[in-house]
Amino acid sequence: MTEVNRRWLLRERPKGLVGPEHFELVEAPVPAPGAEEILIRTLYFSSDPTQRGWLHEEGGYIEPVAIGSPMRAGAIGQVVSSNDPNFAPGDIVTGTMAWETHHVTKSDTHLPLRKIDPSMPLTWTFSLFGITGLTAYFGVTEVGKVKEGDIVLISGAAGATGLAAAQIARIKGAAKVIGIAGGSEKCAYLTEKGGYDAAIDYKQGGVSAKVKELAPDGVDFYYDNVGGDLLEAALDNLAMNARIAICGGISHGYDSWAVENGPRNYMLLILKNATMQGFLVLNYMERFPEAIAAMAEWVKAGHMQPHETVLEGFEELPGSLQGLFTGRNIGKMITHVADPA
Amino acid sequence: MTEVNRRWLLRERPKGLVGPEHFELVEAPVPAPGAEEILIRTLYFSSDPTQRGWLHEEGGYIEPVAIGSPMRAGAIGQVVSSNDPNFAPGDIVTGTMAWETHHVTKSDTHLPLRKIDPSMPLTWTFSLFGITGLTAYFGVTEVGKVKEGDIVLISGAAGATGLAAAQIARIKGAAKVIGIAGGSEKCAYLTEKGGYDAAIDYKQGGVSAKVKELAPDGVDFYYDNVGGDLLEAALDNLAMNARIAICGGISHGYDSWAVENGPRNYMLLILKNATMQGFLVLNYMERFPEAIAAMAEWVKAGHMQPHETVLEGFEELPGSLQGLFTGRNIGKMITHVADPA
Repeated sequence: MTEVNRRWLLRERPKGLVGPEHFELVEAPVPAPGAEEILIRTLYFSSDPTQRGWLHEEGGYIEPVAIGSPMRAGAIGQVVSSNDPNFAPGDIVTGTMAWETHHVTKSDTHLPLRKIDPSMPLTWTFSLFGITGLTAYFGVTEVGKVKEGDIVLISGAAGATGLAAAQIARIKGAAKVIGIAGGSEKCAYLTEKGGYDAAIDYKQGGVSAKVKELAPDGVDFYYDNVGGDLLEAALDNLAMNARIAICGGISHGYDSWAVENGPRNYMLLILKNATMQGFLVLNYMERFPEAIAAMAEWVKAGHMQPHETVLEGFEELPGSLQGLFTGRNIGKMITHVADPA
Repeated sequence: MTEVNRRWLLRERPKGLVGPEHFELVEAPVPAPGAEEILIRTLYFSSDPTQRGWLHEEGGYIEPVAIGSPMRAGAIGQVVSSNDPNFAPGDIVTGTMAWETHHVTKSDTHLPLRKIDPSMPLTWTFSLFGITGLTAYFGVTEVGKVKEGDIVLISGAAGATGLAAAQIARIKGAAKVIGIAGGSEKCAYLTEKGGYDAAIDYKQGGVSAKVKELAPDGVDFYYDNVGGDLLEAALDNLAMNARIAICGGISHGYDSWAVENGPRNYMLLILKNATMQGFLVLNYMERFPEAIAAMAEWVKAGHMQPHETVLEGFEELPGSLQGLFTGRNIGKMITHVADPA
């Protein structure tokens, strides 16, 4: 049997919600690695909101994905053959790859290729120690500077970053961690399994008033994964010297860096001497080992656990990305495409 | 001749632009100071954007001015009689007073009453060492953390805070200080007398493109006195790790803490790992002496100078406040109402 390389290519740039219609599934021969290159059979893909940004024509912190190219994605794979002396057939690796069953790359990808410990569940690479967990780590500790007694509010609370941020905030001594998510199922998950003290279902409306009820003295740190109305609800309820970390704006669909309405009450930052900070976790790259070590300790001590939604099959990839924006996942959105040999 | 106390009372809360129609000029007997109180004859009044906030019914960091009360304002006056052992007739004092020719107060006003050195021009109390200068000082040094080589952009550049901020940024080593103001007269003032390297007239439009031309590598610190479109133009042009200090939103007229449109491109904070911080200078009150001492040194060394617009007469007070929002002043807006005895 000749193996084929199945690939999801970008057909056209989405305006608004990204979906399967923007991609095309094609088959091609399995490529051979060139000098210094490595051929990897992909096993798991990570779906991340930041991928939506890679589809903007205008670019951002990284080159846009070109029309006709396979969609870029974080992935875990197994080395098939290698012309790089640092990687050998059989190695389980993670890095930035693309939506294809067989991927050829050099090791200096966007997130540099690295071997992972095959003794732990492979998906933990994404759910705990991947970009979402790292984003939560630096968002809570560096941007939020969460300390003993803080009241913490998190939107996108049932997402991978939100669930990691809640656990890290708790570890750092937060007195109360309030999550905002969509729907009763997710809200139940937050308080029953996610380690939140309280949950607000934004689909019920009245978010600002509910935050006020749960945090009458104001919110010390708001971790914003969503933007839009929820950012305004948080701005309404800041404590003095509050911090806001903005990491994304899922409500805006990442269609562009500009949105139709910015936060109308942003001037409340003045009244509360508050700070709103945007951050890209890649700026902390040299500190990733420190963060991963800290989180591994917390997992070992039982203070932190993975939360995952794993879809099955290569065909699911576009839907998996779309699902991030339609609220399909609880925890880290992962697609399983193959098992290690 | 029996002296009368002339007073400007708040008649109704403005919606939108504040103006003389919102106040009523009345005459009353000169009051006598009660226990621990001081009777002050007012000499100069400071007009400050923050006064507009004091007219909101909803309040803010300080109680709203009540309908029928004289308008609260920063002032300089001379003590007429005193039941407070710390103040004696003839003392020149400054603090938070109200729009009246004769004002009775205790010493623990909003900005505590303090004596000022009558050997320097009295107006310098406002233009260099008052709230606007202090706001600039902490905005540039603490929020902006301006350092050698920074590219600095300032809106409301011809206002008192803007002109002070430009001088302080220069002292802190900024490589380039760009001001945004309205009209060719103000823009000429900025580069000829205000110490700016370049000026952008926002009335000509195209501000974002002009900032890009003047600061092709981006702006390290944006001092926002205005909000609105100019904040968006600055967000378009941030350097990595940029800081934005927001101190007000003159373009919104301070009608409320909420505006019709927030900054639509605020998510560019993410792309640039940038921080937008609101601040109230009152939070730095215990460090005011340090700031005043530093600025006094700079004045002595010739690195900093006052910029003032002084209106003449008690009748001018409401117009003086309005003028802040219609662009009437260059530098500190001050109203002179009497001379020391």
